Amino acid sequence: MSEWDEMKAVTILKYDESEPQLELREKEIPTPKENEVRIKIHLSPINPSDLMFIRGLYGFKKKAPVSAGFEASGIVDAVGSGIKTLKVGMSVSCVAPQNDGSWAEYMITTEDNCLPLVDGVTLDEGSSFFVNPMTAWAMVSRCQKEGHGAMIQTAAASALGKMVVRLCKEKGIPLINVVRKKEQEDNLLAIGAENILNSSSPNYQKDLYKISKKLNATYAIDAVAGETAQSLVECMPYGSKIVCYGALSEKPFAVNAGIMLFQNKKIEGFWLSSWIYEIGLEEFQKQAKEAQTYLKTVFQTKINKRFKFEDFKEGLEFYKQHMTEGKVVFGP
Amino acid sequence: MSEWDEMKAVTILKYDESEPQLELREKEIPTPKENEVRIKIHLSPINPSDLMFIRGLYGFKKKAPVSAGFEASGIVDAVGSGIKTLKVGMSVSCVAPQNDGSWAEYMITTEDNCLPLVDGVTLDEGSSFFVNPMTAWAMVSRCQKEGHGAMIQTAAASALGKMVVRLCKEKGIPLINVVRKKEQEDNLLAIGAENILNSSSPNYQKDLYKISKKLNATYAIDAVAGETAQSLVECMPYGSKIVCYGALSEKPFAVNAGIMLFQNKKIEGFWLSSWIYEIGLEEFQKQAKEAQTYLKTVFQTKINKRFKFEDFKEGLEFYKQHMTEGKVVFGP
Repeated sequence: MSEWDEMKAVTILKYDESEPQLELREKEIPTPKENEVRIKIHLSPINPSDLMFIRGLYGFKKKAPVSAGFEASGIVDAVGSGIKTLKVGMSVSCVAPQNDGSWAEYMITTEDNCLPLVDGVTLDEGSSFFVNPMTAWAMVSRCQKEGHGAMIQTAAASALGKMVVRLCKEKGIPLINVVRKKEQEDNLLAIGAENILNSSSPNYQKDLYKISKKLNATYAIDAVAGETAQSLVECMPYGSKIVCYGALSEKPFAVNAGIMLFQNKKIEGFWLSSWIYEIGLEEFQKQAKEAQTYLKTVFQTKINKRFKFEDFKEGLEFYKQHMTEGKVVFGP
Repeated sequence: MSEWDEMKAVTILKYDESEPQLELREKEIPTPKENEVRIKIHLSPINPSDLMFIRGLYGFKKKAPVSAGFEASGIVDAVGSGIKTLKVGMSVSCVAPQNDGSWAEYMITTEDNCLPLVDGVTLDEGSSFFVNPMTAWAMVSRCQKEGHGAMIQTAAASALGKMVVRLCKEKGIPLINVVRKKEQEDNLLAIGAENILNSSSPNYQKDLYKISKKLNATYAIDAVAGETAQSLVECMPYGSKIVCYGALSEKPFAVNAGIMLFQNKKIEGFWLSSWIYEIGLEEFQKQAKEAQTYLKTVFQTKINKRFKFEDFKEGLEFYKQHMTEGKVVFGP
């Protein structure tokens, strides 16, 4: 093969909890097998789940060395003989399979892992469509389906948090937003969020108790864990459900069984992969198509900064310092 | 009123977490109002929930001074003018209302809180029918309805635990039994229990992981909390649900949000009062009638020792020392 057949990929060498072992590698552009497609990556974002994954703290590990990155947008560039719905040249939003990753110039994946972008959606807009919007979509849908009076979210100033703010407004679900810094409050106010609580305030638990009771907010989604999750379990009304979908604090939280039983409370986990499996691929694709119609509004994602794959270290560092200020993305 | 109109009642003077403030009081026998009945108590057991209640650690408090005790059997002795289904002379299993208790010679309660005993059921047998059998019944029914492969229970040698052993056998649900003492293992073996694990064994967590995976035990009921509950959350298979119905250790347990989300786990509380409210009184009475047909088999309760109300202090002390050896009951 000539030098033209090589690509750059941010590669996980091995999993290390304290210090991610990543390296930019030049490797051969892979050829899709029968049921695979090759995507020429346009943009691939950094998500909180990526930070956990590269340290080996995610729900599974891929066999290293392997390209990092979960999601991307790109152009279908080659298809295996068994591919039915995708054609070379199509724009897609896509996620990585078990043996490849999206922080690379090319990625091999399966048909199930690609959602064709509808007319009018740009590749920039489609680059962060899978992970955050579909997670927000699924959790808010559940809240609505179960008929809760109102919803609470922690880490409300995150990219996903802002989507939840807009989606709840769209669906008419009253929302309580928990942040931990003053500038995040301002940030949320600027997009029209209401009921903003600061978890670092001394009155936080009292305020949470009051407002959740007043709005009958019996459904919460939490991405922080630790004391933040514990406050939800303790301060929310009788019959509340707390959904854990992240652990930004990387801390466990203490649960009082008495509160669980006398107050009829529930704690459960949410993970997009489990949800897709539960509802089935067909239903997922149907919902994803509906969600995509909100890409320019509810699910608009501000791209804060772009980095080349070569500069991945700088990109990761920048992301960690500016997690709630818009997406940080990799591109060729 | 003459001295004949006085009764003895074990009375909570005030709630004190460290040292229950109880006193035997002589008081006037109450007269039922329109929608109330008076029960001449035959026997009233001590349950773990009573120990929590008299210390003020239960889900609610009654206005003190008030008679202690949650459940009993007895004879309907007087009825208000609005009572429809109960008649003087009927034998009932009953629970206390918000303003009275069962550790007394007489108790005022409502029609909803009484279940007439069917022919052939003795007052001794009916004295512990509400709390333990119906809690066991409800939790096992849920396990079956949700289609779990097998069930796990902690505190398996308790009165309720033994009922669960027999009920799961009756319903064909494979059961894993967790105890913490060698003699409790023997105790369970004697009633035909299988899959017994000792939580004080050094291999406990490993064994729990293995056997729950092998039997696909994705539903657990826990009465202990603390480390015991934590082990369930950590060692049970993907998709498991842990139901908290007690907190014998009086300790909270730590939950790792990553385990909740990546392993799609759920923790929820179970409290008989919430369950009755959820399913509605009519459905509850229907199920209670069905459950009553198992009173001589599945729900047989060994009465270990009887105490007079006068000797309540001795009775409580004896119960705390012999919690898993049969019911300790109060009677006139």
